[in-house]
Amino acid sequence: MQILILGAAGMVGRKLTERLVKEGRLGGDAITRLVLHDVVEPERPQASFAIDTLNSDFSIPGEAAKLVASRPDVIFHLAAIVSGEAEADFDKGYRINLDGTRFLFDAVRTIGDGYKPRLVFTSSIAVFGAPFPEAIGDEFFLTPLTSYGAQKAMGELLLADYTRRGFFDGVGIRLPTICVRPGKPNKAASGFFSSIIREPLNGQDTVLPVSTDVRHAHASPRSAVNFLVHAATIDTSKIGPRRNLTMPSVSVTVGEQIDALRRVAGEGAVARIRHELDPNIIRFVEGWPRRFDANRAESLGFRAEASFDEIISIYIEDELGGVVPA
Amino acid sequence: MQILILGAAGMVGRKLTERLVKEGRLGGDAITRLVLHDVVEPERPQASFAIDTLNSDFSIPGEAAKLVASRPDVIFHLAAIVSGEAEADFDKGYRINLDGTRFLFDAVRTIGDGYKPRLVFTSSIAVFGAPFPEAIGDEFFLTPLTSYGAQKAMGELLLADYTRRGFFDGVGIRLPTICVRPGKPNKAASGFFSSIIREPLNGQDTVLPVSTDVRHAHASPRSAVNFLVHAATIDTSKIGPRRNLTMPSVSVTVGEQIDALRRVAGEGAVARIRHELDPNIIRFVEGWPRRFDANRAESLGFRAEASFDEIISIYIEDELGGVVPA
Repeated sequence: MQILILGAAGMVGRKLTERLVKEGRLGGDAITRLVLHDVVEPERPQASFAIDTLNSDFSIPGEAAKLVASRPDVIFHLAAIVSGEAEADFDKGYRINLDGTRFLFDAVRTIGDGYKPRLVFTSSIAVFGAPFPEAIGDEFFLTPLTSYGAQKAMGELLLADYTRRGFFDGVGIRLPTICVRPGKPNKAASGFFSSIIREPLNGQDTVLPVSTDVRHAHASPRSAVNFLVHAATIDTSKIGPRRNLTMPSVSVTVGEQIDALRRVAGEGAVARIRHELDPNIIRFVEGWPRRFDANRAESLGFRAEASFDEIISIYIEDELGGVVPA
Repeated sequence: MQILILGAAGMVGRKLTERLVKEGRLGGDAITRLVLHDVVEPERPQASFAIDTLNSDFSIPGEAAKLVASRPDVIFHLAAIVSGEAEADFDKGYRINLDGTRFLFDAVRTIGDGYKPRLVFTSSIAVFGAPFPEAIGDEFFLTPLTSYGAQKAMGELLLADYTRRGFFDGVGIRLPTICVRPGKPNKAASGFFSSIIREPLNGQDTVLPVSTDVRHAHASPRSAVNFLVHAATIDTSKIGPRRNLTMPSVSVTVGEQIDALRRVAGEGAVARIRHELDPNIIRFVEGWPRRFDANRAESLGFRAEASFDEIISIYIEDELGGVVPA
């Protein structure tokens, strides 16, 4: 089995690569070749099978065709300009997130000749825009309030239509906020959801810019990889024509996140969080979803964590070697 | 006030032109210039203001910029490859319905310099795909089951995002099935909804290919023009960021359509309808919406007919000189 990952240098792409390298298989099949692609050349891990690394701008006409010419059996399309940048640079966001996605899909389509790979596309809860109900169900409409969200929603429509036409076998998965993100604090407005856990666990101070009443939906990086692997191996005849699925998540308030941190790492960790409201971030967060009823995905076997305690435990296992800092 | 109509040679475009020519105004403003565009040159009616007719393929890069260079105050974007052709010719459908729409939107955007026209885009109930509830509400999700529907849904997303970014002031209107269509029978799967009324009123026989239980949502061509004019003149601050609206319609069964025909034109007209089931058309129709709760559009002042009798009366007034045939 040949696999192609676009966006392989990103956090989720690297974790997916680690998982595939470790298992050597996807579903029932041994991996024979893995192609890692990104706009910057991804790292090439050691593996029991062939790994190629490639860098190019897949939104340049002709580039996507090169990526799929070897007819990978499974394509993970994780490549995207993130929300903030797509908002700041309108042309670049549409070029990468819409044109790039369409070039990729068309590159697969125009191979023809019976080629019909599984194609897993990461969408985002940014396809939803406020106001929405307390819990967003599987039939709620998409009204993105960012260009990134609009581009992801268009990618979903393309994926469903190309799948319906038989050009590939697509599954779109709407990722919730991934928490706890490893690495350094970033400037994303949503960064605090991870920072208030990660920094205290690493013995550093951090700032909470919103009320502890703020509720949001999370899944761990490990769950994100589980979603991708499940989407790549599921019997898609069970999904039907509605190929884009809201993934399961853990809905908690910031206060509940902090309570979980206290249970896992003690009062000393919690004391690292300084509460300092930021009106800009508060305004952003008011437009974000609070909870999802991801019934379709759950009935199809997608699973997230059962609690935020579990999300913290996974961070400690996967990023801190299983050791809760003193 | 300068007005541009793309898709002016189509049925709705011609009726919109007639209305604008007759009234000489749109909202409170006198029309000074009307540009009629289509891929075939539209007819040029006599009017009290300047009318230009143009034909070009607006999906060729650079063509859309020529159309908006004179900075029309209102743009009606009715141009599209219809459902059957977009399904038969995948590339052409995406080129006209997606790329053409985006080129138009980008042509407006790149003028900049404070140019911010009202842009009215005709979407379609084809953005909805079965299964759906008995009545489709304003927050039901879009799951098109045709490439045409997918392209219209993407146009809606672009319209909302470009409006949010301030590039123009967009309103997307999802037209129900337009009935009674004037002219000759066509081969569209939905053609019978009009044929079973139009042909008997014109003294001709016609075939009903589905059960009389089939329920569908209709509005007259006159309502379609009313929707367009209202969308062009409404105070858009009342709409908010959700710029795409399902238009009101009359939900009736085919049996109720026939009952209305009987009331308006007598048993002789009804006798012109031969019942001859067509499995292909039956299968298509099963996937079509039956009823809409168009509450948002209605609260914003959009109005369709109150009954199918009224829809037939409008056909007789507008197409048959007000005379019910003997």
